[in-house]
This record gives sequence, structure tokens and C-alpha cells, in this order.
Amino acid sequence: MSGAAMARCHGLLEPALREAVSVLHPWGARMAAFALGWSDTDGGPSAGDGGKGVRPAITMLSAEAVGGTAESALPGAVAVELVHAFSLAHDDIIDRDELRRHRAALWKAYGVGPALLTGDALLALAVTQLAGRPEAMPYLSAALIELVQGQTADMAFENRPWRGPDAVTIDEYAEMAAGKTGGLLGAATAAGVALGGAPELADRMWAVGRDLGIAFQIVDDMLGIWGDPRLTGKPVHSDLRRDKKTLPVLAALASGGPAARELAAVLASGTGDEESVRHAAHLVEEAGGRERARALADRYLSSALGVLDACLPDAAELRALCHSLVDRVN
Amino acid sequence: MSGAAMARCHGLLEPALREAVSVLHPWGARMAAFALGWSDTDGGPSAGDGGKGVRPAITMLSAEAVGGTAESALPGAVAVELVHAFSLAHDDIIDRDELRRHRAALWKAYGVGPALLTGDALLALAVTQLAGRPEAMPYLSAALIELVQGQTADMAFENRPWRGPDAVTIDEYAEMAAGKTGGLLGAATAAGVALGGAPELADRMWAVGRDLGIAFQIVDDMLGIWGDPRLTGKPVHSDLRRDKKTLPVLAALASGGPAARELAAVLASGTGDEESVRHAAHLVEEAGGRERARALADRYLSSALGVLDACLPDAAELRALCHSLVDRVN
Repeated sequence: MSGAAMARCHGLLEPALREAVSVLHPWGARMAAFALGWSDTDGGPSAGDGGKGVRPAITMLSAEAVGGTAESALPGAVAVELVHAFSLAHDDIIDRDELRRHRAALWKAYGVGPALLTGDALLALAVTQLAGRPEAMPYLSAALIELVQGQTADMAFENRPWRGPDAVTIDEYAEMAAGKTGGLLGAATAAGVALGGAPELADRMWAVGRDLGIAFQIVDDMLGIWGDPRLTGKPVHSDLRRDKKTLPVLAALASGGPAARELAAVLASGTGDEESVRHAAHLVEEAGGRERARALADRYLSSALGVLDACLPDAAELRALCHSLVDRVN
Repeated sequence: MSGAAMARCHGLLEPALREAVSVLHPWGARMAAFALGWSDTDGGPSAGDGGKGVRPAITMLSAEAVGGTAESALPGAVAVELVHAFSLAHDDIIDRDELRRHRAALWKAYGVGPALLTGDALLALAVTQLAGRPEAMPYLSAALIELVQGQTADMAFENRPWRGPDAVTIDEYAEMAAGKTGGLLGAATAAGVALGGAPELADRMWAVGRDLGIAFQIVDDMLGIWGDPRLTGKPVHSDLRRDKKTLPVLAALASGGPAARELAAVLASGTGDEESVRHAAHLVEEAGGRERARALADRYLSSALGVLDACLPDAAELRALCHSLVDRVN
């Protein structure tokens, strides 16, 4: 994907995002700046990378793809980035994740209560961006519902067994991923075209974003097992260590071969120590979990690109950005 | 206030609220039902009182006061009740309050993560109600911003001293209360008239709700010190025990007499034991904190009613409901 397009979008986004956050109480603004990767806990400039800003770029490129300007989609771009930051702040509390983007998670830096409240503030600012825009607001609110549904399903998966009739199916996984990650990408694409002047394309572009989101989440799961912690900013194998129902593991177990059976036994006896976690990761790969995950991510990406090409045949930059989301290493 | 009007509003609200919540994941719906006071942790009918539903009643009566139907304002009524439930769920996590409406707080019953997520779900459902209604949605989003600002200010007050140049002033208190409680009442009144067919009155009705909210919060503070725990459902003196900057205490300290000086000394040495808490409550009253708080609540109520009468001279039921909010005992 063109780095120039990303840089252009980022250049438009950041001042708008900073203006949105500036209305907050000074203490709230400071925590929001930390959450958005702009500053460290002392308020000084951050050493972190501040996130990649792919969702707002998708919004702006979607607007341009229907003949609108990137500026026309700015309220939507700001909104999706704020919702993304909100969801990270709350997810890290829920999952007790202590690291985010190579530094302390918001709740680790400021405490659970302040982090929770900062998440709420980011969400309130997001909603405010589109409150008077009925052509785009329903997609944002739909994404919020999907987010909590996906997160609830993900949490409920933790109490489900790895094998047997109550095990999580690949279809259930896809539905969870569509909610947790797809909804907001759906809002990014749909709000983009709606604000860019083509609200009649918004429902179909919502579907593009949702499929893209499932692919994105599968890649996230893969990076959680085989990603380089120096690039991802997260501890290696943390999902495996916490028995999270991720796609590569579900796909490996579903393969039914000897490696799958051994993996099931390892998971059943617990992945407490480093050695068993490493062994489990190896078995997931041996049972074909990595390959199947990659294939499924590619299938969802193809589905998204198919609809995108039908809606917007000349959206080269947007298309390239979609591709890069599934080919990323962090 | 007419109990018949409240019962009528409640009869319209509950089915609409249940329908809104029914879209959630079964586990999320169960926690939401607990948060809304409909059921206990096992999913059975609740022994709790489920809240009073004053905010949605205000929304529906506001719509009727401009000649609309209560039904026309239902999306707004559902939205404000959901935002109220969201804010209670999150506030109890932030404040570590273990009791709410005579039973366990949501986070005590289900854990911090699930309670946080349930709050987010309630908020997402609220936003969805008004997403396509640009005449009302901006008031809801403004209320969300006010809520987080007020809550942040309230939290920041905890680190401020009781006396001296850095002490919290009555004006700062009023601003915090306007945010924490006034914003949502502002949204209740403004969305009510906007959905009822008179969007041109919404800005002035927002001001009515905000002043009413300050009065409401002051009464809440008073009930926190002198209320009957059997009626309020909260432990007696909990705000005093936690050094919360409430209006009666701030007003008592500002009176400057001997009781105020003794109160300052008691607060400075800490209100750890039951005896010193009781003594502090007594000194707040002796220093005139209770009387001043009452007078200030009445002043804000008068201000709200003054604007209400100018906007809507024939809104008898709404007027009576506003009155009852400041004369309540729980």
C-alpha cells in the first residue's frame, strides 16, 4: 500500500483528533493523549508509535473513492479512531493485558477507574463527531453494538471446552471476530462513503469492512502466536498462555490428525509453563492451524475485495490498504 | 407529583427497554437485566426496586408538554434510561461501591470486566436508539461528554484539600454536578421536546434539565449524609467516610464559624472510625451545611422551573415531577 496515502490521511487526522480531545478536562485529556500514543504518563512526548491509524485512513480513502474529499469524511475518521482507542482501553482492563504498543496499558499507567473513564470519554467524543450526521451515525452505533457483542462472545468462549460438543466452532469464531473487529471496519468503510457523498453504497461497504475485519482478526491471532514481540509490542504466546480460543488453535484441533490429538492433550493439561506453551505453538503449526488460518484470512479478504471491486472499481489506494491489513507483521 | 403519570410512563418504557436489551448476547442480556433491576444474578425475577425511571418519565412528559405523544419520545426515553444504567455500572466500578439499590453492585455480582462491558453495551444500545434522529442525538452526545467531564472532575476533587487556596469551591462543585447529573437530565428534557415536535425549544429545555440536575445532585449528597439507608439502599455516611467533596460539607466549611473549624480539624485527622464519621456529620449540620445545601438545591430548582414556565406554561405533570426530584427521600 502507498505510504504516501497513509501519510496524507494521517496529516489530516491528527489535528482533528487533537481538537476533539481538547475539550476534555485537563486530567482526562492527559490520559486520552496517553491512550492515543501522543504522550507518556508525565505528559511529555511519547516514545510509543501511537497506532497505525488504518481505520481512519480507510474512512478517508472510502470517501475519496466515491468522489468526495478526505476532509468531508474527517468526522467519521476521527470517530472510528476514537472508538478504536476506547475499545483498546476497555479491552486491556477486561483482559488484564499489561502491555499495549510497547508500553504500559492505560489501566496499568493510571489505574482501572481512570482508564475506564478515559475509555468512556473517548467513546463520548466519537459519538459527538457524528451526532448530527444521520447518514453515518447508524453505522457507528451498529459498530458499537457489534463490538460489545463480539467482546462478550470472546469472553464467553473462555468458559467453553477445547473439544467435544460444547467446543467453539469456526463459524462461531467468525461471528465473534466479525463483531469484535469487523463492525468498526464496517463503520469505517460505510461512514466514509456516506460522508463522501454516496450513502447508497454504505450498506454494501459495511459488508466489505466486516469481512475485512474477520481477516484482520485472524491475522491478529496468528501474530499472537508467531508474531515477533519486538514488532507486535505484546508478550509472545500470550493468547496460548491464557487459553484464548483463537482461530489457528481451533483450526488445528479441527484437523483431526495426531498433532491435533496431542495438542488437545497439551491444552487439557494446561499451558502453565514456557515449555508447554512453546510445544503447543509447535503443535498448532504441525496440525495445519497456521496454514488453515492463513487460507481463511485470505478467503475473507477476497470476499471483501470482491464486493469492493463491484462497488468501487477504481479504488486502488483503498484496495491496497485492505491488502496491507492482512499482510502485516504488526 | 402524580403517581399516575409515572405509572403511565413506566408502562410505556418497560417493553421498549426490554426490546432494546433483547438484541444482546444472552450472557450480556442477563447482566443488563441485573443492571436494570429486572433480575437477580441467577436470572430469576429481582427483589430489587429497579430504579425509579424519572429520566425517561421526564422525556415523555416533555414531549407531551409540547403537544407530542409519549410514544413519540420513547427512543429518547429508552436512551436516557440506558445511559443512566451505563453510568451507574461504571461509576460503581470507579468508586468501588459494593451496593446499589439494596443489592450487590454489578461488578460485585459479575466481576469488573463483565460489568465494564455491560456498561458499554448499555451505552451502545442507547446511542443506537437515537442514531438516526439528528434533532435529538446531539443532546444525548452532549450529555455523554458532560457525564465524563463531571465524573473526571469528581475524581480529581479527591486529590484536592478541604481547606486553603486549592480547596474545591462551590462554583466548581456546581460545574461538576451540572456535568455528572445535569447533562443527562438536560438530554431528557431536550430530547423529549425535540422528539415531541418542538426542536426549537430543545436548547432552553436543556438548560432546565441541567439546573434541575444540579439540584438533584445536591439532594443526593444530602441523602448520602442524612438519608435513611433503608430507603436509599446505600451504606450510611459512605461519602463522608471516603472524603468525598460533597456540597453540604463544602458549604459547612465555607461558613467559617467554630463548627466549621472543628469540622476541618476532624476531616484533616481522617474519618476512619464510626465515631468520627458521626461527629463530622453532626458538625456539617451545626455549621449550617445542611441548610445551605437545601437552599442551594431550591435555588437551582427555581431557576429550572422559571425557564420551564416560560417555555411551557401548561406543563403541570412535568413541573410536578421536577419538584418531586428535589423533595425525594431516596
